[in-house]
Amino acid sequence: MSIETLSWVGGVSDGFLRLIDQTLLPIELRTIDCRNTESVWEAIKQLRVRGAPAIGIAAAYGMIIGIQNVTVNSLEKRFYDVAQYLASSRPTAVNLFWAIDRMKRCYESVKIKLHNGGAEEHTMILNELFLEARKIHEEDRAICRAIGNYGQSIIMNGDTFITHCNAGGLATADYGTALAVFFTAAELGKKIMVYADETRPLLQGARLTAWELMQKGINVTLICDSMAAMIMRQGKVNGVIVGADRIAANGDTANKIGTYGLAVSAFVHNIPFYVAAPISTFDLALADGVDIPIEERNADEICCGFGVRTAPEGVNVYNPAFDVTPAKFISAIITERGIINPVNKENIENLAAD
Amino acid sequence: MSIETLSWVGGVSDGFLRLIDQTLLPIELRTIDCRNTESVWEAIKQLRVRGAPAIGIAAAYGMIIGIQNVTVNSLEKRFYDVAQYLASSRPTAVNLFWAIDRMKRCYESVKIKLHNGGAEEHTMILNELFLEARKIHEEDRAICRAIGNYGQSIIMNGDTFITHCNAGGLATADYGTALAVFFTAAELGKKIMVYADETRPLLQGARLTAWELMQKGINVTLICDSMAAMIMRQGKVNGVIVGADRIAANGDTANKIGTYGLAVSAFVHNIPFYVAAPISTFDLALADGVDIPIEERNADEICCGFGVRTAPEGVNVYNPAFDVTPAKFISAIITERGIINPVNKENIENLAAD
Repeated sequence: MSIETLSWVGGVSDGFLRLIDQTLLPIELRTIDCRNTESVWEAIKQLRVRGAPAIGIAAAYGMIIGIQNVTVNSLEKRFYDVAQYLASSRPTAVNLFWAIDRMKRCYESVKIKLHNGGAEEHTMILNELFLEARKIHEEDRAICRAIGNYGQSIIMNGDTFITHCNAGGLATADYGTALAVFFTAAELGKKIMVYADETRPLLQGARLTAWELMQKGINVTLICDSMAAMIMRQGKVNGVIVGADRIAANGDTANKIGTYGLAVSAFVHNIPFYVAAPISTFDLALADGVDIPIEERNADEICCGFGVRTAPEGVNVYNPAFDVTPAKFISAIITERGIINPVNKENIENLAAD
Repeated sequence: MSIETLSWVGGVSDGFLRLIDQTLLPIELRTIDCRNTESVWEAIKQLRVRGAPAIGIAAAYGMIIGIQNVTVNSLEKRFYDVAQYLASSRPTAVNLFWAIDRMKRCYESVKIKLHNGGAEEHTMILNELFLEARKIHEEDRAICRAIGNYGQSIIMNGDTFITHCNAGGLATADYGTALAVFFTAAELGKKIMVYADETRPLLQGARLTAWELMQKGINVTLICDSMAAMIMRQGKVNGVIVGADRIAANGDTANKIGTYGLAVSAFVHNIPFYVAAPISTFDLALADGVDIPIEERNADEICCGFGVRTAPEGVNVYNPAFDVTPAKFISAIITERGIINPVNKENIENLAAD
């Protein structure tokens, strides 16, 4: 994309994080500049930047911003405070914690080299951490491309797929995960068609996925989430690809609310259901999906979407942001290291373990 | 309800149809007065009045309005023109055609009695047709109550149900079809809980069903359509009840888009799935659901919900207003004549044939 989902602007010690404010798309393509950790936290919380890989990258840069203007003596405490603070922004996507942990491990390896705590050592720490954040960012580009390439074995010329939410360039540093498969297919000259679920309540499919696919000239048709089952029954769909926010050791996958229902429909209609996600999405510490924390968001997202009240005042609302799809409904998981198929503990361990 | 979904105001020859404008709910409870057939047609088309039984009643009264101010010589032509015109408002709900056909049959039986075509005969025709329209209206009240009573065998104290769209008092003359089962249960002192699907794109569940249930003090929680499968998997749901717009001879049922996906989820989770509908919803001329015409509505309902644009300009959109749920996914159909279970041609014929 001509404007990057997220980018670092300026030098290490005085630079900042620039993000596309995804809450304004597709009406307005505007960036915001995050010059303190509070604004990074707010951008993640309010979904200005969203998508599991992208919020990991944003958090890594946020940790740099948090220690730019501290004395070398208070740096360590501040660094860990910032880590904890940013980790509190959203609970479900494991990539957030994964990126923060990488930054912490980087800090701990740099710390060993410290001698006198002078200003030059502050610069050294900042530089090393910045290189790590940039590495996470750069790696994500390569991961997207690899997922796009591995995904070609499941998408044929003439195929029609459904996708849910946005697992595209806006959810990552580059090409996306689920959408990387479509972008690569189009580059290879495959004629494909995509149905984009609008993805209630926040309409990431309507606002972001439809927009990204149109920008790349891919034939996209927008539907309400509740229409997917009918379209499957009509025989119009060859497969489903979605992203993921956290995948347990057995393959149970947390992703945007609505993914599970889509998987159930695909199962009943005998349509393959694929998850595309980087290895950083796996949480091998969790045996299965039962223990994945599910973020519940504000009732207003459902009752007052985009400023218009559409439900009675005071109505009870249940608004989980994610659901968990059991591994048995997932045909394969497409990662940057290859395809996991069938989806089970052994195959995941073989591919995902460090 | 204190304000009726629809009512006739005034005398036969100068009265009009008063409707709750359901597009304004739940923000505003306002009625509109339809004094010509164009405004009745527009109210049905724009969903100011909606729900299969209610649009049948509205059309019947609309046919009276259409012949109030014509000379006795042009009455017959005008009557059939109005019938055809109102039938063109929405294609899926069979109750619309059923009500129009009843009015036509009434006209044909009155016509035999005509002698001189004088003014008093015009009055006689109007009166007879008005009585027929009022009979359709009154019968609907009794039907709602009977459905509510028969439905008690499937809902127990402590149960939690999901419903989709609005099959309540606003969809009928009185108590609704699916919601009649809940209203009656509450009257009998059963403590029940209802999850209301918001029902994209027009949010009849959020705007109308949640509002109606809250008005009657029933414990209702609003969810997005895509959350139903997750809630079923959590073991929170004892059953699903929905209304219907047309039921084929074999039990295949057209209802609001999203019903089919809900039925698929209920099937996978082994949760009973019920349809509640008056006998007038059956179209025994159709062997199965394949030939039920499915209304496709404007893309703006999805792209510009409630005045806010939430999808890229020019995006392709597919917006079917209904889907068809095959009989095999329907546990039982609750009618005013009893419960059809299992749902098959023989049982339907036995109950629904004239």
